[in-house]
Amino acid sequence: MQDHRFILSSQDIPHAWYNIAADLPELVPPHCHPATGKPLTPDDMKPIFPDSLIEQEVSTERWIEIPDEVREKLAIWRPAPLIRAVNLEKHLKTPARIYYKNEGVSPAGSHKPNTAVAQAYYNKQAGIRRIATETGAGQWGSSLAFACDLFGIECKVYMVKVSYHQKPYRRSLMQLWNATCVASPSQDTNVGRQILAKDPDTTGSLGIAISEAVEDAASHDDTNYALGSVLNHVCLHQTIIGLELKKQLALAEEEVDILIGCAGGGSNLAGIVFPYVKDVLDGRGPKLIASEPSACPTLTRGKYAYDFGDSVGMAPMACMYTLGHSFVPSGIHAGGLRYHGMAPTLSLLHKLGAMEARSYHQNAAFEAGVMFARTEGICPAPETNHAIRAAIDEALKCKETGEEKCIVFNFSGHGHFDLYSYDKYLAGELEDYDLPQGNIDKALGELPVAHVD
Amino acid sequence: MQDHRFILSSQDIPHAWYNIAADLPELVPPHCHPATGKPLTPDDMKPIFPDSLIEQEVSTERWIEIPDEVREKLAIWRPAPLIRAVNLEKHLKTPARIYYKNEGVSPAGSHKPNTAVAQAYYNKQAGIRRIATETGAGQWGSSLAFACDLFGIECKVYMVKVSYHQKPYRRSLMQLWNATCVASPSQDTNVGRQILAKDPDTTGSLGIAISEAVEDAASHDDTNYALGSVLNHVCLHQTIIGLELKKQLALAEEEVDILIGCAGGGSNLAGIVFPYVKDVLDGRGPKLIASEPSACPTLTRGKYAYDFGDSVGMAPMACMYTLGHSFVPSGIHAGGLRYHGMAPTLSLLHKLGAMEARSYHQNAAFEAGVMFARTEGICPAPETNHAIRAAIDEALKCKETGEEKCIVFNFSGHGHFDLYSYDKYLAGELEDYDLPQGNIDKALGELPVAHVD
Repeated sequence: MQDHRFILSSQDIPHAWYNIAADLPELVPPHCHPATGKPLTPDDMKPIFPDSLIEQEVSTERWIEIPDEVREKLAIWRPAPLIRAVNLEKHLKTPARIYYKNEGVSPAGSHKPNTAVAQAYYNKQAGIRRIATETGAGQWGSSLAFACDLFGIECKVYMVKVSYHQKPYRRSLMQLWNATCVASPSQDTNVGRQILAKDPDTTGSLGIAISEAVEDAASHDDTNYALGSVLNHVCLHQTIIGLELKKQLALAEEEVDILIGCAGGGSNLAGIVFPYVKDVLDGRGPKLIASEPSACPTLTRGKYAYDFGDSVGMAPMACMYTLGHSFVPSGIHAGGLRYHGMAPTLSLLHKLGAMEARSYHQNAAFEAGVMFARTEGICPAPETNHAIRAAIDEALKCKETGEEKCIVFNFSGHGHFDLYSYDKYLAGELEDYDLPQGNIDKALGELPVAHVD
Repeated sequence: MQDHRFILSSQDIPHAWYNIAADLPELVPPHCHPATGKPLTPDDMKPIFPDSLIEQEVSTERWIEIPDEVREKLAIWRPAPLIRAVNLEKHLKTPARIYYKNEGVSPAGSHKPNTAVAQAYYNKQAGIRRIATETGAGQWGSSLAFACDLFGIECKVYMVKVSYHQKPYRRSLMQLWNATCVASPSQDTNVGRQILAKDPDTTGSLGIAISEAVEDAASHDDTNYALGSVLNHVCLHQTIIGLELKKQLALAEEEVDILIGCAGGGSNLAGIVFPYVKDVLDGRGPKLIASEPSACPTLTRGKYAYDFGDSVGMAPMACMYTLGHSFVPSGIHAGGLRYHGMAPTLSLLHKLGAMEARSYHQNAAFEAGVMFARTEGICPAPETNHAIRAAIDEALKCKETGEEKCIVFNFSGHGHFDLYSYDKYLAGELEDYDLPQGNIDKALGELPVAHVD
């Protein structure tokens, strides 16, 4: 019996993150201040981020050392296994070889702790006693709760109210890891109190939760803020995925032809593709595919422009593919992919033609996830199903052409807390509908203006 | 950085299960017919089990070959990693070294698929098209659903009604893996219909669910029955855990001093300790510890006697430690440990003095589980918390004595579907109370009589 699991030892955890800024043909345009539209200065960010992360955000050094204390904590679950999906291959009768990098093995169940641990560490080093953040479905909140607990930092999570009530188990995880989780809007911030006074029954939104977390951080000297995707330093921390992958593919004696990730804010995709981008730009790398939901088609139907990072215009502007900060995607179950923008680095790559993007309706994505669960055993997160769908489609193309390609996708997380959505899918209750162009045009009509030289 | 994860390759999956019957100083007394009290014949079992499993149930061969098809399916997640819990050690400031065998990495999240895959395979070989079983909280039902799906066997699960409604996500998992899951009592069997006619609002019980599954299997030619614990062949299939462990401890250059498992029906404990029992009987093995709940103290307060396998007297009698088949444990969250009996092989070992048993209240068990989640990152199943509690207590003893012992426990499963119970614990809402001796005496007064020569 051949071994289909490619496992590294703790020693193989990379000693440095790979900073793609060193190899891009042009710099990512600077983030801009939401009020003035002018490039952000480090001083603008100091009230909510530690210096070390602000430096990483703008660094152009190719390699940034991973502190030993971070590697030690990552070793709780890393290196993440690379697994060849032989049972899925057999089921598809494809000549392609399909591999997945299983980021679902982390304590919180996704790739998010890769950056949460690093961010908690740097905040601890900076003497920060407390971190505030927002969370939608709870993936990021639970990851940061876990990381903060490891370093003895207090963690306050503002969780969108509707999810707070609908997803009690992610909230339980946060509490298990010592975090305080409140439904947002809450009585704990000015912005929360104001919104509740106007509309006590509001279900909340990610935009409101961000506002509460940022206010909390900005108004407490001992408190910082942390973000789980989009920003350069977040994508940087995720490159550990692709760096491990390179070692594992060498063990498997493979060269990847097609590299796939699902794309919401972009951090899991960035993590797996960035270490391959230089090869792609040099014309000898794999095909890179971003797989996003048709309900939130940022790369496939959005515009490359400056836009606010949040939905209310309080967060800095970034130059990125966006559907407009006022765009409201329908309530698909892949909550982690419902973001109007895309990481600026990934956006630039897409603009440069280095990466392909495609979108899938959720029934197509769930169909792929169910096939995966029934062949490979693991139940994937609804977000991850988008990557699986693209991998299966590529494998089926190989079946037609007879090509024996090597396909690798990032298995960004498990679906143990998303089984309700599988019930809906299996009961035939998920609806797909075509997003009217008017919805996108309207939101794109409300883009802010940046003032960059 | 030292490596604390001991990972084997697919080739290291054992080629044979270890049958402890070959090395016991006396034979496990035969199972007896529930109606006549006389030893069961193979013919008694043929209506519900395939011949191969009936043979395994009574075999005294030391090694029983694992079919290649079973090893291939086990390779979807096995070998399970052995991990040194360095963060827990540091937290406890113990000189002991603590290792755990992580059976939570299986698709269903526990050790149960180890036997589910084997049982599904042998039933498939015997031409069986369909398997019926019962499940309480859903661990066994979801494991069998997964295994049946791998071999293209239909699976019907009778799930205790109260759990069916309280634990919808385990039910979702079964459906994801193509099983049909109904609330028991159901309209699908005579026994179910009779009970519903008398009491339409009954919450159901494991005893009723077993009765329904056995009736289903016995009344359909193409259908067999499968059990997830207690029986000899089930414990046999679990020995893969201890066999892998031996290889991994050799890699770690360790010899285990104390080996621990939680004990409900006994299969995860049997799986990890059986391969060490011959050494124990020869006076040179590790200390073996069974950790059970104080609410269901089968080994610590039960009697070694013949008793029915189920709670209503329809299933065969086995010679084992029992609290009496009519004993009803309180509703602790470790549902998998709420069984009145104990695997006959483990029971014999305990009677022979080869294994120590202890019991813990659930607050003590959850305290250990929370400490584990906050140091090692993984949220354990409530059942597993009993093993963790015993491991921590042994490590704390080492702290007092300064002994550098090697402690290994079986991490039988993760707690992703049990977070509600953590909420209750963290809110201080779990109650511990001392089980009155009268409850046990009453149930032990109702033991059946076996007629063995």
